[in-house]
Amino acid sequence: MPISTRLTELLGLQHPILLAPMDLIADARLAGAVSRAGGLGLIGGGYGDADWLARELDAAGDARVGVGFITWSMARKPGLLELALERRPPAVMLSFGEVRPHADRIKQAGAKLVCQVQTLEQAREALEAGAEVLVAQGAEAGGHGVSRGTFALVPAVVDLARGAVPVVAAGGVADGRGLAAALMLGADGVLVGSRFYATQEAAGAQAAKERMVAASGDQTIRGILFDIARRNVWPAPYTGRVLRNAFSERWRGREAELLQHQEAEAARYAAARAAGDFDTAGVIAGEAVDLIGDIPPAAEVVERIAREAEALIAGASNRHRVGRP
Amino acid sequence: MPISTRLTELLGLQHPILLAPMDLIADARLAGAVSRAGGLGLIGGGYGDADWLARELDAAGDARVGVGFITWSMARKPGLLELALERRPPAVMLSFGEVRPHADRIKQAGAKLVCQVQTLEQAREALEAGAEVLVAQGAEAGGHGVSRGTFALVPAVVDLARGAVPVVAAGGVADGRGLAAALMLGADGVLVGSRFYATQEAAGAQAAKERMVAASGDQTIRGILFDIARRNVWPAPYTGRVLRNAFSERWRGREAELLQHQEAEAARYAAARAAGDFDTAGVIAGEAVDLIGDIPPAAEVVERIAREAEALIAGASNRHRVGRP
Ligand SMILES: Cc1cc2nc3c(=O)[nH]c(=O)nc-3n(C[C@H](O)[C@H](O)[C@H](O)COP(=O)(O)O)c2cc1C
Ligand SMILES: Cc1cc2nc3c(=O)[nH]c(=O)nc-3n(C[C@H](O)[C@H](O)[C@H](O)COP(=O)(O)O)c2cc1C
Repeated sequence: MPISTRLTELLGLQHPILLAPMDLIADARLAGAVSRAGGLGLIGGGYGDADWLARELDAAGDARVGVGFITWSMARKPGLLELALERRPPAVMLSFGEVRPHADRIKQAGAKLVCQVQTLEQAREALEAGAEVLVAQGAEAGGHGVSRGTFALVPAVVDLARGAVPVVAAGGVADGRGLAAALMLGADGVLVGSRFYATQEAAGAQAAKERMVAASGDQTIRGILFDIARRNVWPAPYTGRVLRNAFSERWRGREAELLQHQEAEAARYAAARAAGDFDTAGVIAGEAVDLIGDIPPAAEVVERIAREAEALIAGASNRHRVGRP
Repeated sequence: MPISTRLTELLGLQHPILLAPMDLIADARLAGAVSRAGGLGLIGGGYGDADWLARELDAAGDARVGVGFITWSMARKPGLLELALERRPPAVMLSFGEVRPHADRIKQAGAKLVCQVQTLEQAREALEAGAEVLVAQGAEAGGHGVSRGTFALVPAVVDLARGAVPVVAAGGVADGRGLAAALMLGADGVLVGSRFYATQEAAGAQAAKERMVAASGDQTIRGILFDIARRNVWPAPYTGRVLRNAFSERWRGREAELLQHQEAEAARYAAARAAGDFDTAGVIAGEAVDLIGDIPPAAEVVERIAREAEALIAGASNRHRVGRP
């Protein structure tokens, strides 16, 4: 039996699984595949390239996909949010910045306002600003985040929300165990990034996907090295999680020094990115890479997560020995 | 129906709940209370005060309690492990250091060898060294730890163990949602620290317990400030999670400077600890403090966690809408 939650009801989904709006990775093709498989694809509006976003939204065609923004960056680009809202997305996700200035406009346009938060304090602010879904993102997540872990943050946000809005767990979810665990913590679904990056449709380099398959979560780090190298240091308290590589091992703990060499290193870094050299360029991924062992179609990931969670939940109470494989 | 897992079988427990061997906090009284309630109490051998340990082990009387050590510190104190093994504890937990030198001795003495690990790499080493239970500790935990989050570490350790040994989740577990989620992630139980600190039996100051009840997980930090102030800096990569207070806010980000003033600050700090002044002295606690709202007897914590998890698991498959409260 499919898992039905307040999230699936609110957003009209078959499975309580959202694609994280990963900058450069979650394009129309990946988002469309996730939505068609019964989840909800969110196109990665990222830092806000209007041409790219318009193209991807149009390319999504009749697939029902939402959009996610890096809020502090989107807020600097007048017209960008409107460009998205014109296409009548079912949901807009804001992450990493102030929700209030955009909340009314998003809801007026008929999109559900999904807010990704990294602390309990942010969750409180997002609720007050009118969030209709809260995504509680733990620091094991790939990409930018703060420091709290998924396991205790999710139930704390659930308690804060007191049933007023559905809560979604993000950070470390890559299989049905993660979805089933999130539901037990009181969440209504999951938002998944890294696992969808390592799918056939994701708009990333094959070599990056293969590194994710090969890597252990122990080999990820959270920091600002790659943001320095990209000339894109975020406002505090955000840092980013990536796979370690030769570049990170060279500069780890020497952020100040890297800033001094930023000019030269940023040029070298840009060249490496263009060349697909991931010994220098960072692969953005979370600790869940331990749970990623292949590069299947995205629909298969949706199906696997849903089926495994359904089986775990259906089976748990029947098994005499809960917790036994 | 009580939750039966490989952990409850192996250790002969009624509930798959272990008390974390918290230094100075988990004494005979607290450990005995947890064991009598159907979990397993582990006395906090901590840094290894032989007199304290002997006294507490004797005070435990006929309560069936284990012992946990900070491995790198215990290894420096000849005779300490023997002192514990003489009392024939059902389990000895090692955390934060090399397992191999002690593994055979512990198992020969008839104690189950429980190893707390913080990374997948450590889990591999502990398995190779003969661990009979793996505790996968995420960085949201109170006290010392590393950086990986509970949510993705636990299933990764479960996959690594391939059913050879039970896996226990630690870090962020404070209620039945946490136990139910841990089971869904493939674990066989939980190890709980912070939640048991805020119980009547715990050997901590009432004022510290009250701070835990009042605090949010957002107000915890992981670092080495308090270790510097205690003149007890750990080997890398370990850092400790504590509640923020005036002392941490004063010195945060200025570790090097604090080291320069260590003499004077350590004296000031020791005096504050003795006086129970928690604006200076650190309260060791994890992000799960969000989920802690009272100071009940420890047995009630065991009962609540067990009952809530049983209900969540029994109810999950019956509810049409999984994930709804
Ligand atoms: C490659 C990558 C790019 C990401 N880019 C964004 C982004 O542009 N905006 C955003 O809100 N989150 C971004 N995230 C974070 C996700 O929203 C999400 O929180 C995270 O992927 C969840 O953790 P997981 O990676 O363990 O699934 C990104 C994550 C990854 C892996
Ligand atoms: C007050 C306190 C003291 C601790 N002392 C120790 C210790 O001496 N040895 C040890 O192995 N772990 C110690 N820990 C860590 C626990 O073993 C455990 O991993 C942690 O408490 C689990 O996370 P939680 O606090 O969220 O329950 C301590 C934790 C706390 C809260």
